[in-house]
Amino acid sequence: MLEFTIEDLSNADIERLRGIYEPLAESVRSLVDATIRTEADAQTVVEVKRDIDAAVARLQSRQLDGAFGVRVTTSGESMGWGNAVIGIRNAFAPLLMTRRDAEGRVSADFHLGAAYEGPPGHVHGGVAAMILDHVLGEAASVDRQPRFTGTITMRYVRPTKLGPLRTEAVQVRRDGVKTYCTGYIADAEGVTVEAEGVFITPRWLRES
Amino acid sequence: MLEFTIEDLSNADIERLRGIYEPLAESVRSLVDATIRTEADAQTVVEVKRDIDAAVARLQSRQLDGAFGVRVTTSGESMGWGNAVIGIRNAFAPLLMTRRDAEGRVSADFHLGAAYEGPPGHVHGGVAAMILDHVLGEAASVDRQPRFTGTITMRYVRPTKLGPLRTEAVQVRRDGVKTYCTGYIADAEGVTVEAEGVFITPRWLRES
Repeated sequence: MLEFTIEDLSNADIERLRGIYEPLAESVRSLVDATIRTEADAQTVVEVKRDIDAAVARLQSRQLDGAFGVRVTTSGESMGWGNAVIGIRNAFAPLLMTRRDAEGRVSADFHLGAAYEGPPGHVHGGVAAMILDHVLGEAASVDRQPRFTGTITMRYVRPTKLGPLRTEAVQVRRDGVKTYCTGYIADAEGVTVEAEGVFITPRWLRES
Repeated sequence: MLEFTIEDLSNADIERLRGIYEPLAESVRSLVDATIRTEADAQTVVEVKRDIDAAVARLQSRQLDGAFGVRVTTSGESMGWGNAVIGIRNAFAPLLMTRRDAEGRVSADFHLGAAYEGPPGHVHGGVAAMILDHVLGEAASVDRQPRFTGTITMRYVRPTKLGPLRTEAVQVRRDGVKTYCTGYIADAEGVTVEAEGVFITPRWLRES
């Protein structure tokens, strides 16, 4: 059901493509923030919108038919560049740069700004859920075998302030096709949201 | 802890502001999609990036200090225009246009494209969680009293294809400060993710 595209790209090719498209996404991420926060007058906004429409037309003149997908290079490098949480070409992505320690613990320090707001000045509870789903899923897949969320529960301890944040997740046990993980999001004053989830080895990876 | 700004705006003022800023966010939303999917050459991307950086600078020349917040007008209209799920000025938001029926059922038909991808061609599980958190939260608050997520559990029935989707949520019972809700996301072939949650009346709204 899920098609991972295999591409014959060298590491140098990947670096070259990254060098072209990553800076663009960074600029667009700033634009998303500025679009929410600007108090520019009507005339300025009309002119800016005209420039953006022109930019869209130029980018669309040659584009993929559908979503970016997940491309796996012949050397085994995985390019989920469109991914909603970690995609370097996705200006929507909070762009978690996760680390894994020797015990399989996955963590990331990250920053959430105006685009991730729910209650005034605070992270949307759904954004916290999105991030925890992703980070627990990574912890479930530390052996590089993808596992997909079966169930996940979020417990909101208190509101999470927009700004610098930290997340961490770890496997707690494995039972056949099920991998159990827990994790949290924390701000400077401590944990704000906790999560626990069961992740499932997909059928096409069992027995292999 | 949460500051809702009260503004002395008439309905005509709101419409005027919406007319200025909403089209800009729509263009930026197209740009986010194009940034992921473009196959434009390096030179084009450099030029487009330069134009976007200029647009950002113009918008930032006059802007809010922090996030947009939630402004409540003197007539009681709520403007969560920066909201991560429904904010009309937020190009990141999937922009759910929820409806409420007479029984308090909240629903929305919506479309998720390239920016919301997780597994190839499919919705990121975390994005589904984000949407369900929001829609169940709305169902918990149909009497216009905000309630915040206490705990929420998502059960992933099968992968959700990118494209046209539907979501629905409803209150199932209320017990003191706790409101229980369930809901789902469905594609053309039926339900893909189910959710149930407990939503809490904030302390500052109890006794009032």
